Amino acid sequence: MAIHPHADRLARAQRAMQVAGVEVLLLGPGANLRWLSGYHALPLERLTMLIVPADGAAALVAPELERARATASPAVDIAELVTWSETDDPFTLVAGRAAEPSTVAVDDRLWASFTLRLQDRLGAREWVVASTVLAPLRVRKDAAELAALAAAGAAIDEVHARVPSLLRPGRSESEVGADIATAIRQTHDEVEFVLVASGPNGASPHHELSDRRLEAGDAVVVDIGGILDGYCSDETRNYQLGASDREYAHIHQVLEAAQQAGVDAVRPGVAAQAIDRAARGVLEDAGFGELFIHRTGHGIGLEVHEEPWIVDGNTQVLEPGMTFSVEPGVYVPGRHGARIEDIVAVTDDGVERLNHRPHGLTVV
Amino acid sequence: MAIHPHADRLARAQRAMQVAGVEVLLLGPGANLRWLSGYHALPLERLTMLIVPADGAAALVAPELERARATASPAVDIAELVTWSETDDPFTLVAGRAAEPSTVAVDDRLWASFTLRLQDRLGAREWVVASTVLAPLRVRKDAAELAALAAAGAAIDEVHARVPSLLRPGRSESEVGADIATAIRQTHDEVEFVLVASGPNGASPHHELSDRRLEAGDAVVVDIGGILDGYCSDETRNYQLGASDREYAHIHQVLEAAQQAGVDAVRPGVAAQAIDRAARGVLEDAGFGELFIHRTGHGIGLEVHEEPWIVDGNTQVLEPGMTFSVEPGVYVPGRHGARIEDIVAVTDDGVERLNHRPHGLTVV
Repeated sequence: MAIHPHADRLARAQRAMQVAGVEVLLLGPGANLRWLSGYHALPLERLTMLIVPADGAAALVAPELERARATASPAVDIAELVTWSETDDPFTLVAGRAAEPSTVAVDDRLWASFTLRLQDRLGAREWVVASTVLAPLRVRKDAAELAALAAAGAAIDEVHARVPSLLRPGRSESEVGADIATAIRQTHDEVEFVLVASGPNGASPHHELSDRRLEAGDAVVVDIGGILDGYCSDETRNYQLGASDREYAHIHQVLEAAQQAGVDAVRPGVAAQAIDRAARGVLEDAGFGELFIHRTGHGIGLEVHEEPWIVDGNTQVLEPGMTFSVEPGVYVPGRHGARIEDIVAVTDDGVERLNHRPHGLTVV
Repeated sequence: MAIHPHADRLARAQRAMQVAGVEVLLLGPGANLRWLSGYHALPLERLTMLIVPADGAAALVAPELERARATASPAVDIAELVTWSETDDPFTLVAGRAAEPSTVAVDDRLWASFTLRLQDRLGAREWVVASTVLAPLRVRKDAAELAALAAAGAAIDEVHARVPSLLRPGRSESEVGADIATAIRQTHDEVEFVLVASGPNGASPHHELSDRRLEAGDAVVVDIGGILDGYCSDETRNYQLGASDREYAHIHQVLEAAQQAGVDAVRPGVAAQAIDRAARGVLEDAGFGELFIHRTGHGIGLEVHEEPWIVDGNTQVLEPGMTFSVEPGVYVPGRHGARIEDIVAVTDDGVERLNHRPHGLTVV
């Protein structure tokens, strides 16, 4: 209960529902369900759904063949387990327990195949996403969650420490990526993503892996993450094979300053967009504004991308316990790219980095 | 074009939309999008959406930072690429191109966070899932898809051939699972799932992995799959450490007969439920009906679980080119379980197995 205080989270969620006028909350497999109940349900085409009324007892509807997994999870301490067998209709079960609500909050990631059927059966007037009530709770991590994110951050630091030994001219991005995946598995429970973007591929922020072989002089953007005890890591560093070219070295220096400016701007009470502006301002001043084509960061926790969004226009105020990436980048089409990313936590009076690898361009 | 005839698929989808009275089809990242356009989009919180009108040109709305990946995909041969930048509203883009439809088909797996916003913006009267029009097309695999599924089937056969060498008393399910994952990666592009259910864990059909150590005499259910060239494999076999106990050997023999009966029932023109009944009948006759707690199978292709569902009540008629699992199981709570699974393809006049490992209990 100290580490996963689900009963407390349920009570807070119900209070938030009452304030928001949401009568029933319907969660499918995913991070909301894990956070609220501790149940790591499989994302099956068979419906699994936690039904939380604004007042009263919760119920977990699950396929009969998931009974053993559900029963082994902490969810059964806070919700009555109701299973359905292969020829039952689970939507009837949910509708029977949802008591003709007028406002329903459904899991943000619930598949349309479920959402449309629930809309049909429950006939509520208003449908909102679950994050309306849960995101303000999930966004402030408790001490156990911060410790888990720090451990994940240290684990991915360890992988980045091994990256220089994996980069050699002639090796393909995919080969390097496979070795990095192995290193992530050795330090985490799961691999979440592995991006190795070499040379011109670095100009695409979401380039994953390809058969392109590394060449002498290449800049290589390595953006990697895993999951450890349920919590995500995410860290980006840039490497160069052999001598650095002058333009790239300059870009990288400006980028280091931009990332530092973003991190320096983090403290309780400022708006999320202020972090974006601080990092972006440095790049704009250096003439790279047009080459920074994405937001500055994203929240991280049970999901690798979650609130708060560090983007222009987001006036959400930062609070202690919020955790997110600060990851400005510069992308020169056809040539190369660079991005520096650390996860940070908002503290009571400032900021703490959860990644500790050097920020400078590593020449290998 | 021979392997991924997306223009042809788009034309067939539009004809199906016209017949079904669907004015616009909205696809997010996932198997529907991959099948229709060849674009393997990342499942991001940023909207990517293929907009297909019943008549006329398709458009692919994607985040600006995905431009490089989108442009590199075959999707741009059949749809106009429209990108949006970090501070744009992509839902306005979609609504502007969807032309006030009265009936919209949305991707079955589209997240509620997108579905609800689209409902709000498009205000259509009727919302159905995309599979209404796409599933009847996707369910019949073409020659290239059948070849891809056969190759995936052969790859997972190869992994099962290595399993006996990995099973030893004292090793944990997780250790065995890690080795199997390595073998899947060596033979496929990606690991999809690894289930190693030993002893009493075998009684839970979806038990994945645990720290339980194998013991002499254990029955071990190994259900594994990967992805090769986009198509999935999925095969289950049962192993026993040392001498087989009599009850388990009997269960396994009956199960072999049940699986064979299921496969033998497959041919064009019969209902999907007939396969379930054929396999289930053998288990019921032997007194194991109550211990077979799931459906007999699921379709497989770009998704590891898709139509057709091999379940009682499904009167869908089998047609050549359909591919699915036949996987009856017997689960004895607290003791052990067994499941035998092959993927099969419906041919012009019967059935072809896509897995070829022996079905008998392998004693190691």
